[in-house]
Amino acid sequence: MDNIMPPNNPSVVTPPEVTLVPNNSLLTETPEEGRQLAVKMARLIIKMTQPDEEKRKQLREVYGNDAMMLIAVGHVVAIEFATVAAANNYWRK
Amino acid sequence: MDNIMPPNNPSVVTPPEVTLVPNNSLLTETPEEGRQLAVKMARLIIKMTQPDEEKRKQLREVYGNDAMMLIAVGHVVAIEFATVAAANNYWRK
Amino acid sequence: MDNIMPPNNPSVVTPPEVTLVPNNSLLTETPEEGRQLAVKMARLIIKMTQPDEEKRKQLREVYGNDAMMLIAVGHVVAIEFATVAAANNYWRK
Amino acid sequence: MDNIMPPNNPSVVTPPEVTLVPNNSLLTETPEEGRQLAVKMARLIIKMTQPDEEKRKQLREVYGNDAMMLIAVGHVVAIEFATVAAANNYWRK
Amino acid sequence: MDNIMPPNNPSVVTPPEVTLVPNNSLLTETPEEGRQLAVKMARLIIKMTQPDEEKRKQLREVYGNDAMMLIAVGHVVAIEFATVAAANNYWRK
Amino acid sequence: MDNIMPPNNPSVVTPPEVTLVPNNSLLTETPEEGRQLAVKMARLIIKMTQPDEEKRKQLREVYGNDAMMLIAVGHVVAIEFATVAAANNYWRK
Repeated sequence: MDNIMPPNNPSVVTPPEVTLVPNNSLLTETPEEGRQLAVKMARLIIKMTQPDEEKRKQLREVYGNDAMMLIAVGHVVAIEFATVAAANNYWRK
Repeated sequence: MDNIMPPNNPSVVTPPEVTLVPNNSLLTETPEEGRQLAVKMARLIIKMTQPDEEKRKQLREVYGNDAMMLIAVGHVVAIEFATVAAANNYWRK
Repeated sequence: MDNIMPPNNPSVVTPPEVTLVPNNSLLTETPEEGRQLAVKMARLIIKMTQPDEEKRKQLREVYGNDAMMLIAVGHVVAIEFATVAAANNYWRK
Repeated sequence: MDNIMPPNNPSVVTPPEVTLVPNNSLLTETPEEGRQLAVKMARLIIKMTQPDEEKRKQLREVYGNDAMMLIAVGHVVAIEFATVAAANNYWRK
Repeated sequence: MDNIMPPNNPSVVTPPEVTLVPNNSLLTETPEEGRQLAVKMARLIIKMTQPDEEKRKQLREVYGNDAMMLIAVGHVVAIEFATVAAANNYWRK
Repeated sequence: MDNIMPPNNPSVVTPPEVTLVPNNSLLTETPEEGRQLAVKMARLIIKMTQPDEEKRKQLREVYGNDAMMLIAVGHVVAIEFATVAAANNYWRK
């Protein structure tokens, strides 16, 4: 949980076992897969920031029942997806 | 509801029956259809995040009567639409 | 009001009488008209999300007297305008 | 104040005397002028949304003394400026 | 403090002594300098909006001890930096 | 902590020992490294804004257990990453 408000030695951002970009690529075959990648990337930042699964489970209960937080989740995914879509040149033929 | 705050096994993001990008394409004939796609994409993230229809119904009642949340909904749609519009080269002739 | 937190059948996003993009185009003659279009597009998402005019009237009273909400309104218009301006190639000669 | 949460007849967005884009152009000579334009454009949306000067004066008192709102003001200006800067090709020689 | 919620005469946005873009340029030698410019530009909007140094000092105390506000500060800098980075073509060789 | 709400002499933004862009470059070998850079850049703004490590530690405890703040952290990283990804031309071959 030392990610955004860092300790004074910032040399390690993430525990080595956490992957932040699945398959280490922004390229996907389809928009649907790109959208799933956007969701995964958003999730992995949360996981890196709060690695305790039990706490994440409690927080899921909170935001899943809070209209503003659900909208905020959609907001983050929209931004991640904008990047993924641009990377894939919008999957134009 | 395990989407943004993921369990430790992130291999499955969404139940297989949920489509995140209708027709698996960002391309539409017109700006109007593009705007509708942006709305749908925003909705589908909410649905994926809170799959319980009854809860979503309750939450709709909340945000439909809350000025700040309505503005926030507009914010998310605006971001999704930016991506859809770019994908379609802004429907320029 | 079933837009962002959708019922299980998402086949209809908007009542057919609601237009989301006036004139079905992002292209305008001038920046001023583009800015007005951005405002209209933001408004129409609110209208689609809360179709009850009486409720919207009450909510206008709320956000018109709330500094943070006024700023949030400006935020959404700024994002919509970014898209409209790009569509028009910024009205460069 | 009928802007973002519109009445059912949306044919008029703004009173005719309100200009939303000063000089009806996004082009400026310098980054400094572009930044000032971004500020003005943000202000004019607020003015359109809350045309009562007395109320705006009260609200200025509020947000000028609220750290989160000051940050939010900076946020909106940043977005408007992104558009103005792109329009001017970042004032590169 | 008359910036975002303007008085009816908007002809003057900023007191003439306030510079909004240091050196009147978005171009910097390096990403590090570009990041510093992004911070400065964000700061100058705050300063323009709340010119009273004593009040700003009090507000700094507030947001420096508030996690959400610190995140919001990072958010604004991120957006300003996106513009500065694009202006500099990302400092690619 | 004098960053966003500046004192009247803005000539020094950051203590000289704080680096805002690691390696003074936005270019990375892979998307994974780019994502880590985005996280680091977001962290360094927080560190610059609140240099007291003890306070940051307390605030980490706060936001790590607050669903809305975790989402907000993801939001900021998403924006930083958009810039890093564009700088790297999305790591396309």
